[in-house]
Amino acid sequence: MAVASHRLLVDIHTHVYLPRYAAFLRARSNAPRIFTRENAEGKTEERLLILDGEPSGGRPMGPQFWDKVEKLNFMERHGIDISVVSSANPWLDFLPASTAHQLASELNNDLEEYCSSSPSAAGGELKQLYGFGLLPLVPEVTTSSLLDTVRQISALPHLKGIIMGSRGLGKGLDDDALESVWAAIQKARLVVFLHPHYGVDGKEWGDKENGHVLPLALGFPFETTIAITRLILSGVLDRYPDLRILLAHSGGALPQLSSRLASCIDHDPVVASRLKHDARYYLGKLYFDAVAYGSEELGFVSDVIGRSDKFVKSGSSAGASKGTGAATRRLGSRRMLFGTDHPFFPPLGGAEKWKSVVENLEAIDGVHGWDEVDKDGVRGTNALSLFGLRS
Amino acid sequence: MAVASHRLLVDIHTHVYLPRYAAFLRARSNAPRIFTRENAEGKTEERLLILDGEPSGGRPMGPQFWDKVEKLNFMERHGIDISVVSSANPWLDFLPASTAHQLASELNNDLEEYCSSSPSAAGGELKQLYGFGLLPLVPEVTTSSLLDTVRQISALPHLKGIIMGSRGLGKGLDDDALESVWAAIQKARLVVFLHPHYGVDGKEWGDKENGHVLPLALGFPFETTIAITRLILSGVLDRYPDLRILLAHSGGALPQLSSRLASCIDHDPVVASRLKHDARYYLGKLYFDAVAYGSEELGFVSDVIGRSDKFVKSGSSAGASKGTGAATRRLGSRRMLFGTDHPFFPPLGGAEKWKSVVENLEAIDGVHGWDEVDKDGVRGTNALSLFGLRS
Repeated sequence: MAVASHRLLVDIHTHVYLPRYAAFLRARSNAPRIFTRENAEGKTEERLLILDGEPSGGRPMGPQFWDKVEKLNFMERHGIDISVVSSANPWLDFLPASTAHQLASELNNDLEEYCSSSPSAAGGELKQLYGFGLLPLVPEVTTSSLLDTVRQISALPHLKGIIMGSRGLGKGLDDDALESVWAAIQKARLVVFLHPHYGVDGKEWGDKENGHVLPLALGFPFETTIAITRLILSGVLDRYPDLRILLAHSGGALPQLSSRLASCIDHDPVVASRLKHDARYYLGKLYFDAVAYGSEELGFVSDVIGRSDKFVKSGSSAGASKGTGAATRRLGSRRMLFGTDHPFFPPLGGAEKWKSVVENLEAIDGVHGWDEVDKDGVRGTNALSLFGLRS
Repeated sequence: MAVASHRLLVDIHTHVYLPRYAAFLRARSNAPRIFTRENAEGKTEERLLILDGEPSGGRPMGPQFWDKVEKLNFMERHGIDISVVSSANPWLDFLPASTAHQLASELNNDLEEYCSSSPSAAGGELKQLYGFGLLPLVPEVTTSSLLDTVRQISALPHLKGIIMGSRGLGKGLDDDALESVWAAIQKARLVVFLHPHYGVDGKEWGDKENGHVLPLALGFPFETTIAITRLILSGVLDRYPDLRILLAHSGGALPQLSSRLASCIDHDPVVASRLKHDARYYLGKLYFDAVAYGSEELGFVSDVIGRSDKFVKSGSSAGASKGTGAATRRLGSRRMLFGTDHPFFPPLGGAEKWKSVVENLEAIDGVHGWDEVDKDGVRGTNALSLFGLRS
């Protein structure tokens, strides 16, 4: 039986703290950690603190962060057929190399079990849960540890990619030491889900009390933007053109700053002739989640993906002034994929459906110039293709 | 005689280091400074170093940075009728309060002279040059110094606004100490041109040699985005709804992150009920230069401006899913204004016309959904209105 793929809703941005990882965080006395405190009503609550000095003493934490049944209930409530689940930040970033390698391996096996034991979807041909594995990307880890783990992940049938922060081995993702890792990931056809954790330096947020708003709304997308821009500038996308990188939060600010980036490259003698293509070309090689909360944002992201072919050669600016046709916008939608960011952004009230999810679905539905096929693509078909989930 | 305003090209993002300021920088031994060195061909050259540790030892500097004739020649070569000139960063940020106040006053008078002595434009009714003045926004300056300078600027007939960095009195623009300054600026109907200088912490750029690309392409727009977001969160735009703020570089990343910002505010108990409106509403109260180098970027900025009225009440999300009609995009164009960023981004070769200027003009011309009236608006008519340059 053919999969009725156009009807499937697939969530590719959804996180878990696997029980083994949550237990690990509970045993820690500094961030990242899970700790217990008495709340205002005198009840004991668990809180998650992922950064030192995090505003509001971290955030409340419950079983939706680790319990598979909660994930499946959330999916059912929102009509999500399949989730491609990733460990939530900060992953293994804070661990010494030896611990990181072992824990990565254990968590990858845990996630495979979490997915393979999930109910069937799509008439029995697929599972409800698939996953992104973890690499032990920490300072002083050996290349062979990283390559071993790439091999482990690619051999686990329900893991379809790797979630990755921006630190690499401590020097970012433009580190030459990662060269063979990119090669191995490209060869294994694993999708890299590039996700932020650190934001930018907290002093940028000033002294005013604004809760988590500034680091989450701005810091997160800035970090992703910096990481992918450094990767582009390092030539990784020239050397590994088949690498499949999925950017969290619709690429952060990369779409809006990509023409400025191209201009700054063109005007800088240090960089001007380094890359094979105009910077805007590379946006058409990337994938973007649709976690942007607005139709205009999604339409714009599809514009910058769709226009990328005009920039196939370095220095070509002839196409830049042609404007966006409907075909360009539709084309761009094929690299965009629905996500929820669950279990983050729970509603402040006790709503049945999460506002954050409803908004992202409404945003897809409202994009000017996307037809139903494009919207079904963003809601699910594109994910089935990207992750090889067709029967 | 009526001004043929639809034919005028007005550049509202164009900088000068006035001779008095350049002389001041030459006398300094640390950044910001102008220094002399021998270049590779054995010739003496002046270089501008605006930040400590700036990549590539700063940048070459010539008379285009201070000479009015060079500005007028640049304008003529690119068909620019009128420029609204602002001092370039870092303004007075590095000075003690007493020096800053006096130098601000002198530079404002210098800029008035620079503008008032410029040739006529538009059939004699206007000048070719207008200006943004400077406030002595430095730590420990008195409120009365700031208010005096607002009065000085508003009394100088060719100064139409104030260029402002993001530091304020050292604690950012969301500092309560600036409350009466906003009130005075609103009352004087001066346009605030919010412009970056610092970017974000340089450690974000990593170890690789990428020239000025990362701080300019990403750091600058991030800084602007942070500054205006903090201003929105502080309620300044609720308390001073007639304040006219023009954002450099098309608002940086604010347009693309504004729905995420609204969502993060809605989901954060600290901030959720603070503002009068959904965050996206405020984008329709702002002005954006058109220095984004791409048609898709400009079209998107006009979308987010045009949609702002849907978000007039806090918590209204009903309009968010309706998509962007052509009328919305056209509406947004009215708050967008052509700029060049001269004398920055000179062509690496010796081209007659600057690529950075041509690209920004082509970008305006190529916006899908803007008609010629909209484009003329962005090229000049909007600026004439905003700065009160109609006869």
